Amino acid sequence: MTVRFVVLGCGRIGTMHAEYLHRRVSGAEVVGVFDVSGDSAGAVSAELGVPAVESLEDALSLDAEAVAICTSTDTHVDCMVAAARAGRAIFCEKPISLDVAEVDRGLRAVEAAGVPLHIGFNRRFDPSHRSVAEAVARGAVGDVEVVNITSRDPAPPPISYIAVSGGIFNDMAIHDFDMARYVTGSEVDSVYAVGRVRVDPAIGEAGDVDTAVIVLTHDNGALTTIDISRRAVYGYDQRVEAFGSAGMAQSTNHHEVSAVLASGDGYRQAPLQHFFLERYAVSYLDQWAAFVDAVEHGTPMPVSGLDGRAPLVIGMAAKKSMDEGRPVQISEIDL
Amino acid sequence: MTVRFVVLGCGRIGTMHAEYLHRRVSGAEVVGVFDVSGDSAGAVSAELGVPAVESLEDALSLDAEAVAICTSTDTHVDCMVAAARAGRAIFCEKPISLDVAEVDRGLRAVEAAGVPLHIGFNRRFDPSHRSVAEAVARGAVGDVEVVNITSRDPAPPPISYIAVSGGIFNDMAIHDFDMARYVTGSEVDSVYAVGRVRVDPAIGEAGDVDTAVIVLTHDNGALTTIDISRRAVYGYDQRVEAFGSAGMAQSTNHHEVSAVLASGDGYRQAPLQHFFLERYAVSYLDQWAAFVDAVEHGTPMPVSGLDGRAPLVIGMAAKKSMDEGRPVQISEIDL
Amino acid sequence: MTVRFVVLGCGRIGTMHAEYLHRRVSGAEVVGVFDVSGDSAGAVSAELGVPAVESLEDALSLDAEAVAICTSTDTHVDCMVAAARAGRAIFCEKPISLDVAEVDRGLRAVEAAGVPLHIGFNRRFDPSHRSVAEAVARGAVGDVEVVNITSRDPAPPPISYIAVSGGIFNDMAIHDFDMARYVTGSEVDSVYAVGRVRVDPAIGEAGDVDTAVIVLTHDNGALTTIDISRRAVYGYDQRVEAFGSAGMAQSTNHHEVSAVLASGDGYRQAPLQHFFLERYAVSYLDQWAAFVDAVEHGTPMPVSGLDGRAPLVIGMAAKKSMDEGRPVQISEIDL
Amino acid sequence: MTVRFVVLGCGRIGTMHAEYLHRRVSGAEVVGVFDVSGDSAGAVSAELGVPAVESLEDALSLDAEAVAICTSTDTHVDCMVAAARAGRAIFCEKPISLDVAEVDRGLRAVEAAGVPLHIGFNRRFDPSHRSVAEAVARGAVGDVEVVNITSRDPAPPPISYIAVSGGIFNDMAIHDFDMARYVTGSEVDSVYAVGRVRVDPAIGEAGDVDTAVIVLTHDNGALTTIDISRRAVYGYDQRVEAFGSAGMAQSTNHHEVSAVLASGDGYRQAPLQHFFLERYAVSYLDQWAAFVDAVEHGTPMPVSGLDGRAPLVIGMAAKKSMDEGRPVQISEIDL
Repeated sequence: MTVRFVVLGCGRIGTMHAEYLHRRVSGAEVVGVFDVSGDSAGAVSAELGVPAVESLEDALSLDAEAVAICTSTDTHVDCMVAAARAGRAIFCEKPISLDVAEVDRGLRAVEAAGVPLHIGFNRRFDPSHRSVAEAVARGAVGDVEVVNITSRDPAPPPISYIAVSGGIFNDMAIHDFDMARYVTGSEVDSVYAVGRVRVDPAIGEAGDVDTAVIVLTHDNGALTTIDISRRAVYGYDQRVEAFGSAGMAQSTNHHEVSAVLASGDGYRQAPLQHFFLERYAVSYLDQWAAFVDAVEHGTPMPVSGLDGRAPLVIGMAAKKSMDEGRPVQISEIDL
Repeated sequence: MTVRFVVLGCGRIGTMHAEYLHRRVSGAEVVGVFDVSGDSAGAVSAELGVPAVESLEDALSLDAEAVAICTSTDTHVDCMVAAARAGRAIFCEKPISLDVAEVDRGLRAVEAAGVPLHIGFNRRFDPSHRSVAEAVARGAVGDVEVVNITSRDPAPPPISYIAVSGGIFNDMAIHDFDMARYVTGSEVDSVYAVGRVRVDPAIGEAGDVDTAVIVLTHDNGALTTIDISRRAVYGYDQRVEAFGSAGMAQSTNHHEVSAVLASGDGYRQAPLQHFFLERYAVSYLDQWAAFVDAVEHGTPMPVSGLDGRAPLVIGMAAKKSMDEGRPVQISEIDL
Repeated sequence: MTVRFVVLGCGRIGTMHAEYLHRRVSGAEVVGVFDVSGDSAGAVSAELGVPAVESLEDALSLDAEAVAICTSTDTHVDCMVAAARAGRAIFCEKPISLDVAEVDRGLRAVEAAGVPLHIGFNRRFDPSHRSVAEAVARGAVGDVEVVNITSRDPAPPPISYIAVSGGIFNDMAIHDFDMARYVTGSEVDSVYAVGRVRVDPAIGEAGDVDTAVIVLTHDNGALTTIDISRRAVYGYDQRVEAFGSAGMAQSTNHHEVSAVLASGDGYRQAPLQHFFLERYAVSYLDQWAAFVDAVEHGTPMPVSGLDGRAPLVIGMAAKKSMDEGRPVQISEIDL
Repeated sequence: MTVRFVVLGCGRIGTMHAEYLHRRVSGAEVVGVFDVSGDSAGAVSAELGVPAVESLEDALSLDAEAVAICTSTDTHVDCMVAAARAGRAIFCEKPISLDVAEVDRGLRAVEAAGVPLHIGFNRRFDPSHRSVAEAVARGAVGDVEVVNITSRDPAPPPISYIAVSGGIFNDMAIHDFDMARYVTGSEVDSVYAVGRVRVDPAIGEAGDVDTAVIVLTHDNGALTTIDISRRAVYGYDQRVEAFGSAGMAQSTNHHEVSAVLASGDGYRQAPLQHFFLERYAVSYLDQWAAFVDAVEHGTPMPVSGLDGRAPLVIGMAAKKSMDEGRPVQISEIDL
């Protein structure tokens, strides 16, 4: 069986997904693409030799089993609702929305339609991070007590993007909140966050921070620390560590090149892989393989709608914590 | 010139210091040892062939330039005051006292006498951690923004020790608070701490925790995360990382053996060195070399009395933060 | 411009090349495939949606700029001669032939036709090994004095393959001989080889060895050691090290997963990536990018016909050295 | 029980041994030192507070259980014979002699006297290399098939030393020949060696080489490669690897500092520890502990006289191989 996809949104991430689905994912093909910019859709269409359509309606009338929602965040829920009504299996990029009520509207539509939904927290499919979560799940570290996540982008996005990003917690740390839930296997109780503007004053002027440290407490007693930054001059720094009663599991960074050069100055290794397109390429492919497999076998999607909702709430609590200078209970946000 | 030492206190750490000073530190010799337990003093006396004396007064009447205060914490200040009056250069193990007023009494005596005082925060002399602090100091990581410290003991001390330890923050994390000040080169403003009893319920029954996560904010805007545990089954886990605008410096752990074994199951390395006597042996020696050098040249001691006082206050703030579930300003503690 | 390829040979490596060229190499497409087994060609044809043809003549009459020769070794030269006469840019898998006279017949045809020829020593395009060669070329290790190459397959091929492989030196070590020339930038003068049957007695019965150590001397004074084995239970072990007057460059192995698991038994990492399809995927893609670029710009091919010939001669010398128990000069083989 | 030592020879290595024995080896003390240079003996005497004596006879009349022979190589055997006659347990630095007949004279005297003899191949006591040998011995790598040894000094000794060193094979590679026997647990059959003058032409003028590659074949079928150099600008490079049917064990190098610095240029680590006094300090201490233990318990010495003789013969074969350009059988040297 081949799962036929329509890809909604042909920006950077949508273009990547379309190419992966059409060329590199066994059992998948793209049967159409759509973007509000006809040029963007046209470029993907030309590259892959698949039709571009001119409206969401046309996209959902194509003969396909699944849609990949890769549009701008503010349109995710509308796409989701429409796709659910059309009976499609849905892949939706994170975050579902920056508004919890909107998220809930989307999830209700999905539930009503009974269609499968997967949220694109691709890092769960990174073999390194996954090995940490699996080590916890199979008891290899014993009871999980502390999780440390370091997540540093190589360089900040344009200020124009910052302004519509929803803020560092919901734009960037949302992956780390998901990772904390994934690795501990436990919901978050409270959040304490401290933020700073260290990378670019313009980010502060846009009402956001670019550097932050966060502490999460979990239902199962585990504690998570997260440190994030919008800039790391040595590359994309992505580490997860789970410590427990029987040991510790750590994912380690990926260097651009697996080599060392020794001289009188010491040993030198290459910087880290530049950013997510390189670092997480395998995770995107493995995520698609898991999605296609779940569609084919009618099994549950690996990352559910509620998995998409929870990190958004944590992000809101983090923002409130930073603003008020105190730890915030999740129950304060999500009544 | 040889600096002659009297060693006060012949427990585990005092015995180590006496042996190092007498046998392995160039320019130093031990001319007498004292312990309230004559047996302990006698053992060191026999091993090193130096006289044991029977009272603090006798100890301070020996012809010596310096004393090493390695007695139990509650007697540090009395020793310090007496040694200061006797005109000795003073090395004092950490913590000076668990009581800030006592600390201040000691420091006043030292100041009045005009004698040099060094507090035994040996980790500053560990070549790995030191390289991190020096990288920050010379600007190799740019402006320091985030410091991450992981500090996990292999196994908890006896419960009897827990009861008199002053609690995990002032017994164990005090080294990490010192490290945060040392690496950032900046004072601490506020502390947020969350603690858990995960290792041994008896530690909780003794009124303490055994696992904690701490966030410090610094005067210069830097943020420090610390995670501590009383138990790590894979050995003594001691890592410090400083991240900034121009890069990152990290100290890495020491394995028992520098070797790998590859088999069908993968690659295996030895556990970490067991505990501080092994891991920090070089730091203790380098600390003595720096102390002796400062005495010989009349230069300032590398770790001052105020450096000994500050982490105690941070530890008190951490305890209050944990108890009250909120970040605590240092100014709340230290008026 | 798009370079159109005909792929000759649809076995394991030809299928991989066809898929890479058609789907993952920018500026390339496959316009036809051929295999003596129509089934093999048909499978690739169906997967990629490109025509399969039934003869070499038909393949060379397709409108294309280039051919990829991926047939069995004994047919490489016939394909090369025909493709040269047809004016195609030629990619030929290694080895060109196991017979030097045949190699020379192929190279003469290529020279007469004036077409570009590249030999598929893909490891030169591995970023790790390439960084070693580039470090030597730019003088980062000073004058190169010693090269150490470790090359261990995870498991031996079928005995049926061993019998037609040309022997371990020309089948397996040929890559390492090429690497020695590539890294040192210097021709080989003499070869000393010792071989053993350690992996499977059946390999010995087939007249081959499965474990060997080789020493090469080079024109520029450098010395190369090579150790090869047909079996490494911990994965595909591929290391190259260049040592010189100013330092050392080393490529390091690729583990299946970038993570560690620490327990009371120590630290554990995953085994190495299984074999060449995983380990060298990037090298194959980068090799194609270089080939396509050279065709487009009319620049010299990165790995010439003579680069394909030299390792074969070294392999013959290695076999003679092993058989006669003495170092053999290249000039004894290649008059 | 305390084992009393007389140390013969107070050069660099003798001074180190005297200090280790007197101050850092439990159960050992130095009761006298001797050197043909009274000044050298006097310096050690002053530092340790032990008597210096003026002749070998006086040294052997001191009340002691053991001697440590650390004199110049050409006097080892005379010291050994005298110490054996005096009934002392003997530690002798490597090489016993550069002349096999002399070695045999010494061993006969030891055998006649029935005293214990240990040859100072300290690297067997390095925890990293030892772990490799132990992995082989307990079967963790299966049948050992290939051993790779890299042994590079940071910088060459003075030319005056080169002239009396016995040549690179017996001065420097002798440790590696011992390591090959130790790790494989098997005698050497044949040697093939290629040498070069790459570091300093003056070494060539002194009749020696400074860079070499060696292949050993062993009785048990194993093959060893050794590469040595008199100069490595990045520090003292000491690696041993044993590969076999069930896996591989590797000792890894020691960096000066356990830390990394990441910047836009990549990751940087410190150079390797400078030379043997740093790198092998633990091995010297562990060797003494094993010697003292064997004396106390009357158990066999860990490194026997024959273990001291075999590498000398291998070194002679290596020299002959290099000179004659062919592999040399051990049986050609040692009839």
